[in-house]
Amino acid sequence: MPPEPSPEQDRQFMHRALELAARGRGWVEPNPLVGCVIVRDGKIVGEGFHQRYGGPHAEVEALRVAGEAARGSTLYVTLEPCCHFGKTPPCTQAVVKAGVARVVAAMRDPFPQVSGQGAAELQQAGVQIDLGLLAAEAHELNAPYLKLLTSGQPWLIAKWAMTLDGKIATRTGASKWISGPESRELVQQLRGRVDGILIGRRTAELDDPLLTARIASGEKPPRVATRIVLDSQASLNLQSQLVQTAREVPLLVVAANTASAANVAALQKTGVEVLQLPGKTPDERLTQLLAELGSRRLTNVLCEGGGQLLGSLFDASLVDEVHCFIAPKIFGGAQAAGPIAGAGVELPSLATTLSKPNWQQVGDDLYVRGRVKTQA
Amino acid sequence: MPPEPSPEQDRQFMHRALELAARGRGWVEPNPLVGCVIVRDGKIVGEGFHQRYGGPHAEVEALRVAGEAARGSTLYVTLEPCCHFGKTPPCTQAVVKAGVARVVAAMRDPFPQVSGQGAAELQQAGVQIDLGLLAAEAHELNAPYLKLLTSGQPWLIAKWAMTLDGKIATRTGASKWISGPESRELVQQLRGRVDGILIGRRTAELDDPLLTARIASGEKPPRVATRIVLDSQASLNLQSQLVQTAREVPLLVVAANTASAANVAALQKTGVEVLQLPGKTPDERLTQLLAELGSRRLTNVLCEGGGQLLGSLFDASLVDEVHCFIAPKIFGGAQAAGPIAGAGVELPSLATTLSKPNWQQVGDDLYVRGRVKTQA
Repeated sequence: MPPEPSPEQDRQFMHRALELAARGRGWVEPNPLVGCVIVRDGKIVGEGFHQRYGGPHAEVEALRVAGEAARGSTLYVTLEPCCHFGKTPPCTQAVVKAGVARVVAAMRDPFPQVSGQGAAELQQAGVQIDLGLLAAEAHELNAPYLKLLTSGQPWLIAKWAMTLDGKIATRTGASKWISGPESRELVQQLRGRVDGILIGRRTAELDDPLLTARIASGEKPPRVATRIVLDSQASLNLQSQLVQTAREVPLLVVAANTASAANVAALQKTGVEVLQLPGKTPDERLTQLLAELGSRRLTNVLCEGGGQLLGSLFDASLVDEVHCFIAPKIFGGAQAAGPIAGAGVELPSLATTLSKPNWQQVGDDLYVRGRVKTQA
Repeated sequence: MPPEPSPEQDRQFMHRALELAARGRGWVEPNPLVGCVIVRDGKIVGEGFHQRYGGPHAEVEALRVAGEAARGSTLYVTLEPCCHFGKTPPCTQAVVKAGVARVVAAMRDPFPQVSGQGAAELQQAGVQIDLGLLAAEAHELNAPYLKLLTSGQPWLIAKWAMTLDGKIATRTGASKWISGPESRELVQQLRGRVDGILIGRRTAELDDPLLTARIASGEKPPRVATRIVLDSQASLNLQSQLVQTAREVPLLVVAANTASAANVAALQKTGVEVLQLPGKTPDERLTQLLAELGSRRLTNVLCEGGGQLLGSLFDASLVDEVHCFIAPKIFGGAQAAGPIAGAGVELPSLATTLSKPNWQQVGDDLYVRGRVKTQA
């Protein structure tokens, strides 16, 4: 018998599996990110990760690479192996068939058709199974997947670009450009990884944005996000870039039930999907929209403003992640708009706080990313 | 004859001299920062910098260290050696007496009693003199000194702390605390290096600050800044921390000529200096104040807000340097105040821009420092 990997080695191999898993971000949703490392006699003999939605699972890929070396090996995987027929055959069968001696999985898959049964099946087949190594990291990795699965709502990312004095436009409303070209390229890449991009109608009017992922290298982005405009009266300008491109890139206009039938029909005629929601206030309709997007299995939704919409989202504690670009310039102006309006908090201790924010220089700008710290 | 240093070596030694000079910041003002390196046969035989106001000049210190080794050496100095009797005897004489063969000075001293005459004197004594190596760096090093000398106004530093959504207080006006303890310690150190700390009356009222440099290590700061409050009616609360400490730490209240004599007298009785200025508008009085502070030879003045005062300063292009602390939290709120009010610019292209900003993580916060790019 070869010696068992030490607990320290276990952690190292699982870290590697987590690293691999992260490479699938933007490609695999609404599936979870999964990475897998197969080790025999202390050496990695196979690696794999879930590379795209509908493609082979991480375990299958790693077993393919390992081949005969998988016999008697330890397999590290960031999520409990599946045991059901989905887009691909169950991984548990492949693991058993390959003769893997031990499976270390970072966390149980809360997906109802797996949850615990994958592990049970392996155990019954005589495979040693250890669950829970680096579970916190694995949960963090798949937070958007887990949120959609458990709450039925997409993971909400708030994004804005502002000056060093916290302005998103000058006092006259001019905002082109605040951040530099390197920052704007990162926004394009971010857009290409999400399922939906949400803005308010005022922002649609002021900026007339396209909201598509135009990556400078010409590379095809992983996915095409549905563009979503909150527009209670369904009065979005038919000449806007958004409406004009609705037949090429999905555009969802979210209106109230009270929107004029003529407005709705005019938009629909151009290829826009109009979703009318019964909520009486914008906040009610926002909640209904998120449930609807969840039922459509949108995992990540990026909100690009404006301040009023972002303010409503923060006021309702709906934001999960923040991406903020700060340009080293000052607009000044008591009347110039800031990024987050709404009511806001009353006391500093009630602020929304980022956990482990990442600060990174991008061109001349600063790029701050972080997830919202969840209240204890 | 030993070989002459190469141009590359010249630059290296001057860089070292600039590094040394910078160590005097906060200690030597209103004198310039000066560093000096003496090199013989390719080796540094003496180093020195101007360490405190009234103390020995950099050249004298470096010559003392070099001793006999200075004979036939090259002396690198960040500023033309002085040739007049000030607080200390002229450096030119010491250089000649020590037998230095060549002096490389980064820039001419614009101080009227030196400007070019120091160099001329050395040349007449047979010392080779090269002026202008790394002149841009030397000008940058002594920008506050040069501004005071050429414009008669102090170098103005704007400082604020804000949330990631550009708020300096919640909607209720609460602001304690936005930045973390590490950031606040840096502010204390900054206060200990400047000659004046300027705030508006509303900030004095809202925050009741002390505005002294309380350094955590208990170290004595380089200097004690005069605290300056813009208070047109001289109506500062007599019970405020500022007024209550006026006999220990200088407090200057800047009022209009129209302030009530009773208010002025009440403040004076507590040890406050009241400066009444004839300007009819706050902006006029601000300009008069800066001229007055310049004539008192304050080199660096730190403005800590509020938004209205900082806004006026940016609107009038009076800010030279920015120190901004950003906390990874979000207050939100359309009514919550931002750091820079005033009129602000009309177009993004007219923004005040920082040149070579330095972004640095401090505790959980981000600390951004930079000088304002001067218009071409």
